[in-house]
Amino acid sequence: MEDAVSTPQRASDATGLHRVLEPTGVLPQAARRLDTRRDLWADEVRIRVERLNLDAASFRQLSAAHGEDGVAVRDAVLDIVATRGKMQNPVTGSGGMLVGTVEAVGPESPLGLAVGDRVATLVSLTLTPLVIEDGLSRWDGRSEQVPADGYAILFGRSIAARVPADLPADLSLSVMDVCGAPALTARVVGEYVDRGGRPTVAVIGGAGKSGSLALAAARKAGAGHTIGVVPHRVEADLLEDASLADVVTIADARDPVALSRAVGEAGGPAEVTVVCVDVPGCEGGAILSTADRGTVVFFSMATSFSAAALGAEGLAADVTMLVGNGYVPGHADYAMSLLRESPGVRRLFERRL
Amino acid sequence: MEDAVSTPQRASDATGLHRVLEPTGVLPQAARRLDTRRDLWADEVRIRVERLNLDAASFRQLSAAHGEDGVAVRDAVLDIVATRGKMQNPVTGSGGMLVGTVEAVGPESPLGLAVGDRVATLVSLTLTPLVIEDGLSRWDGRSEQVPADGYAILFGRSIAARVPADLPADLSLSVMDVCGAPALTARVVGEYVDRGGRPTVAVIGGAGKSGSLALAAARKAGAGHTIGVVPHRVEADLLEDASLADVVTIADARDPVALSRAVGEAGGPAEVTVVCVDVPGCEGGAILSTADRGTVVFFSMATSFSAAALGAEGLAADVTMLVGNGYVPGHADYAMSLLRESPGVRRLFERRL
Repeated sequence: MEDAVSTPQRASDATGLHRVLEPTGVLPQAARRLDTRRDLWADEVRIRVERLNLDAASFRQLSAAHGEDGVAVRDAVLDIVATRGKMQNPVTGSGGMLVGTVEAVGPESPLGLAVGDRVATLVSLTLTPLVIEDGLSRWDGRSEQVPADGYAILFGRSIAARVPADLPADLSLSVMDVCGAPALTARVVGEYVDRGGRPTVAVIGGAGKSGSLALAAARKAGAGHTIGVVPHRVEADLLEDASLADVVTIADARDPVALSRAVGEAGGPAEVTVVCVDVPGCEGGAILSTADRGTVVFFSMATSFSAAALGAEGLAADVTMLVGNGYVPGHADYAMSLLRESPGVRRLFERRL
Repeated sequence: MEDAVSTPQRASDATGLHRVLEPTGVLPQAARRLDTRRDLWADEVRIRVERLNLDAASFRQLSAAHGEDGVAVRDAVLDIVATRGKMQNPVTGSGGMLVGTVEAVGPESPLGLAVGDRVATLVSLTLTPLVIEDGLSRWDGRSEQVPADGYAILFGRSIAARVPADLPADLSLSVMDVCGAPALTARVVGEYVDRGGRPTVAVIGGAGKSGSLALAAARKAGAGHTIGVVPHRVEADLLEDASLADVVTIADARDPVALSRAVGEAGGPAEVTVVCVDVPGCEGGAILSTADRGTVVFFSMATSFSAAALGAEGLAADVTMLVGNGYVPGHADYAMSLLRESPGVRRLFERRL
């Protein structure tokens, strides 16, 4: 029976530890190599893969390393997946996500999925056992969107969201990719509102994917004033057209003085500053743009822990700094609802597809 | 008049921007080179330096790079300070702190210091203009504690604490070096207590300097149960003797399964987990040791932002993750009070002098 659940020796673990081949004892994300066996443990789910969505930083690194040669990039991805049993760029450490259809569900899976469900994984490819079976023959190696055939495994604690039937798949995927940002922004703003406040919220990189959703979430959660910071006029026009921020301002986020001045003139300092730009060196400016006892939420993977910690100390800044956790319960549905409700968010996303 | 305040062309800025020589526009911590002129801007303070306390990671790197040759290490430190105008290790990016005596105070300084005050700086050496005038002739290059003569400049927003007269200087310095950890731990625990909770607090690295203070702070702030995690028996005995934790447990913090199991058996998962061990790879274990909707406070400079963010997402862990800000108002006095009240903390510190 093809989809029979196997009865392997090793007990399964909701975090996927049972599929770590080396080094032993580390979590799947930290593993060099995962076990990609097709048979499922009782709490697992197998997905027939339709498309991979490579992390932007990873794709950029691979393209640069191979001189923008698409065939070489494709071979590199195939080699990584074959060697590691997962798509994790060894240089950037990052992965991406995937879309596919559920093809088998173990009897003890807690994920609530059924065979035939079309889903996107909301855990990183860096910890997802993956086998590619078509040699990525439909991909030219020149885009982060990778058509693929093969299978992937979800663990008991993995997360997958059904792809909504009313939205194009690439749009849904693009929203799910950044859905942690609006959910956490809403939670942080909500805590101020619960205490009777109407916080000023600044989103650095407000015209981007996570940034536009964060702005929409801040307003919906009760922000009193929203500021969108963008790097140049073109993005400012886009964000103004989208009507997501009370004020749109232009500043280089890497220049702490310019950034904090721009936020100040736009109605700041902010009680809540959300960093959504994927360039290094924005920590100091974000801290300086934030009011005393305010909160900075770092969503950029380019954030440096030590630059944030030492930066706040060096500025004697009494701010709470949050590592942007990509998981908040209900985050995918919440982000989809923002997209459906806000034509401005939807336009910004559709422009980037 | 030797200590006259100069009237330079450039306006001063509380963050020290006016002393950044290159690249322009960055904050002093990010600068390659600072202006170390002796004359003060009106909001500055000049300190006669007595001793530098190099950051442990920086000293370790320098020693290793120079084959433990003390003279070579000394020359390297002199070269860094002469070249950069500050003590910032170019490899680790870290600095340290200093002790000295106030020798001049600008008329507009907001720091509340007076000439003759013996102080420790609580901002990093990485952003403090520094001139060494004795060639570090009293230092053998074999210890992080560097006797030195020279001067340093504090800005309007810098922080310096008076060295208490009732405690040995090296003990005070050693406490001030980590005083952000207990203050932030107390604040986080206090938020639970304000909501009627009595949280379980786990401190990873509980027998260390920041760890022991964090344990004392957690208990004082109203934790219901405290767990100290240490790497081996010797530290477990020390921490048990100090009576700072309700339970002391031994685990390798880099092994997420072992760590979370140990915390679980010691009364966890923790509502608040404080990471105080300076080794990489503790993010996953800390997240797994923390209860749903709990808080992880990362105080280790070895923390990886992306490992924390992707780790929580990969584990579908709904936890709040804080970047341990080294500055909380009143942090030095608070840490000193913990040391004075707790013979256990004091013994652990004195052992490390």
